[in-house]
Amino acid sequence: MSRKASLSGFHEWLPAERLVEQHVLDTLRRTFELHGFAGIETRAVETLGQLLRKGEIDKEVYAVSRLAEDAEGTSAKDPNDPKRLALHFDLTVPFARYVVENAGHLAFPFRRFQMQKVWRGERPQEGRAREFTQADIDVVGDGELSPRYDADVALVMAEALGALPIGDFLIRVNNRKLAEGFYRGIGLTDAAGVLRSIDKLEKIGPDEVARLLQEELGATEEQARQALELAAIRTEDTSFVEQVRALGVEDELLEEGLAELADVVGTLHRRAPGRAVADLSIARGLDYYTGTVYETVLVGHEQLGSICSGGRYDALASKGNRVFPGVGLSIGVTRLVMRMLSQEMAVASRSVPTAVYVALTQDADWSEAQDVAALLRERGIPAEVAVSAEKFGKQIKYADRRGIPYVWFMGRDDAGTRTHEVKDIRSGEQTAADPADWTPSAEDLLPQITRAEDVDPA
Amino acid sequence: MSRKASLSGFHEWLPAERLVEQHVLDTLRRTFELHGFAGIETRAVETLGQLLRKGEIDKEVYAVSRLAEDAEGTSAKDPNDPKRLALHFDLTVPFARYVVENAGHLAFPFRRFQMQKVWRGERPQEGRAREFTQADIDVVGDGELSPRYDADVALVMAEALGALPIGDFLIRVNNRKLAEGFYRGIGLTDAAGVLRSIDKLEKIGPDEVARLLQEELGATEEQARQALELAAIRTEDTSFVEQVRALGVEDELLEEGLAELADVVGTLHRRAPGRAVADLSIARGLDYYTGTVYETVLVGHEQLGSICSGGRYDALASKGNRVFPGVGLSIGVTRLVMRMLSQEMAVASRSVPTAVYVALTQDADWSEAQDVAALLRERGIPAEVAVSAEKFGKQIKYADRRGIPYVWFMGRDDAGTRTHEVKDIRSGEQTAADPADWTPSAEDLLPQITRAEDVDPA
Repeated sequence: MSRKASLSGFHEWLPAERLVEQHVLDTLRRTFELHGFAGIETRAVETLGQLLRKGEIDKEVYAVSRLAEDAEGTSAKDPNDPKRLALHFDLTVPFARYVVENAGHLAFPFRRFQMQKVWRGERPQEGRAREFTQADIDVVGDGELSPRYDADVALVMAEALGALPIGDFLIRVNNRKLAEGFYRGIGLTDAAGVLRSIDKLEKIGPDEVARLLQEELGATEEQARQALELAAIRTEDTSFVEQVRALGVEDELLEEGLAELADVVGTLHRRAPGRAVADLSIARGLDYYTGTVYETVLVGHEQLGSICSGGRYDALASKGNRVFPGVGLSIGVTRLVMRMLSQEMAVASRSVPTAVYVALTQDADWSEAQDVAALLRERGIPAEVAVSAEKFGKQIKYADRRGIPYVWFMGRDDAGTRTHEVKDIRSGEQTAADPADWTPSAEDLLPQITRAEDVDPA
Repeated sequence: MSRKASLSGFHEWLPAERLVEQHVLDTLRRTFELHGFAGIETRAVETLGQLLRKGEIDKEVYAVSRLAEDAEGTSAKDPNDPKRLALHFDLTVPFARYVVENAGHLAFPFRRFQMQKVWRGERPQEGRAREFTQADIDVVGDGELSPRYDADVALVMAEALGALPIGDFLIRVNNRKLAEGFYRGIGLTDAAGVLRSIDKLEKIGPDEVARLLQEELGATEEQARQALELAAIRTEDTSFVEQVRALGVEDELLEEGLAELADVVGTLHRRAPGRAVADLSIARGLDYYTGTVYETVLVGHEQLGSICSGGRYDALASKGNRVFPGVGLSIGVTRLVMRMLSQEMAVASRSVPTAVYVALTQDADWSEAQDVAALLRERGIPAEVAVSAEKFGKQIKYADRRGIPYVWFMGRDDAGTRTHEVKDIRSGEQTAADPADWTPSAEDLLPQITRAEDVDPA
């Protein structure tokens, strides 16, 4: 992580770093599959029309055009032509299109995971990249979708994140209906505007938010105070319901939101204690959620922002009269892995998969050395073979430089019979071995990703 | 595969199709790792200057620009500005840049695999897509790279392709030095031009190639005949050497090429019999290889073109005086998977990972049903839980529609004690089961990708 990207905002990992990212992706995929999520991928490009459907995010979009068209001047003149292609900036918009296009081939409720790169032309800064990987799960229904899935997807993510070497995390849950109902109940009708201000709470503090609410949204001092009182509520269990009721606001939508959030938080509290809280300050900015919303912080790394966010859409997608509600969460894998690496939260035990380096004492043994390696690989032991005979010391040095733990030597005994020995180059211990049954320790078989000692967050 | 892509050239798989692609990627990765290749990924974008370094391929490139810049008119006016960004069209050019940028952090010879999407703005047609996945392996050296790696990478690919449910394939190997030396020996000095014509042999036939050689390259009838005689040589072992010698052409480079190719083909013939041939018609068009070149055909699907190609570069990359030779092969994963699916060569046994659907007979049992599912998942059995109580028939129908083989029922015996039964919905067989130790058959545990009966290629 001390290396600078040669193109600002476009990070590339060294092999040992990539192993950490790959471990994260493998672990997530494993958990998602155990919970019955099917993996899909969508194309990297969407039409601008599709991408801009949900709001004004054009500033972040990378447009794509065939160079030949550009050179011929035959590309669309209007930079905002809705048919123009652009790289997707998240996996939700492409998934919504995919659901509509393939509805006839999918069985609903459709559980899918999707792990792909996305692109945003934002100014690169700590924790933000222009190209990054997201890992999403969503459940989408045809016409209806049980509110139980709101707890279900959060439980899956709690299990997935809990399987990573990242320490404690906390899923903060809120509900848009609860917030909007409350604001309406106190006389603030521009719910989106209030949410936008509340969303800045962690960045600018309550006094500034109160000022914004009054100056920009025409709230009274009392209304601003009430909105901030709501946002200050945070409970591990369903006791937030009483705390909200104590604020004395009455509204039908508020009640609906309270019931929904109590259901989700109650379930999470029972089934994943300590992993989630009701946090009534969570707003999720401009995203068009309609019920439950989630953010997730890494404990001790709160300033990193959310590493896993999402929510429920009453209409993730629609096709004529047919509506597809959905609920899901998205992990910012690149952001998470950057933090894991920069804080040395996790390290790979070596940078190559190879466990055994089969040395050569004479060039003519190459094919026989390949046979040895093949026997090892058949039993799942990654092995590579030297391409030319070298002195022992040089071969050991080569393996050592690449982090390969074992070097295999072929020799001959006094009677001229083939002998095999394997050397652990860390301990220097060398023993006779049979290529058909020698096995390294479980820790040495494949590169291990281990959680390093907790270090103080910077 | 009967569905049409909503954006021409940009294919998306349905969940069951994606499982086949995922199986291909997993199998390749497993083989590459067993052979000590480290996985890396590079960013999707490169500068035009980087992409166009190796030749005139600009027509195929997708340029990328921030929409905000386009709208403000602040983007580079010159469509060929070398600093402009574009999507990579292969994984070799990005890898070469990665090696140069990270040379100080890599241990050479560096063995890497890379499986990513690439983009080309070509006219979409059968077997060609605008977005597709490649799976590459390369070995790159610092200053020098043993010729043994030319056989090594081909052996790894033979093993990787042999592990896929695709039937027979044949790696065709040639050598640029052999071809260029031969052409020089018969007095044809524009080797690149001759290679370009020979490359069209399968498409247009020998008579047309002879005409091209004479009309476009000024070859005599005799020279054209000799070039075609060379291209007609194809042997499983090293007997091609004698056949070339019998043509009576003498040239130093030709001899070097013959020795190199004999070494590669001899090794492949011994270690992977039937998987490879020397094929002296292989030219690899405009690619800037300097020694061994490879193409691979799927037997019975030759008209699909090469599914795995590559070769050796004396200078894959360079940095000042430092030169990095490399040799590698690239699988066109999308092309291969499209064929596997359209010809029903491989099918997934189901479209969801879920093996067990835990039914609900009353809503209050949801949490207990989650406990059952958790016990199954702990032992690696993918399971999902119904979100609401439904009639047995409806729950079985739901599982059946999604291809889930087992439905789990929780009940109570006469004494009110909890009972568990699991039903195989294909056979209808229902048995008592303990969530702590019941296990499905190995074939039912995860979706299986199986090779369907061979069908006649269309």
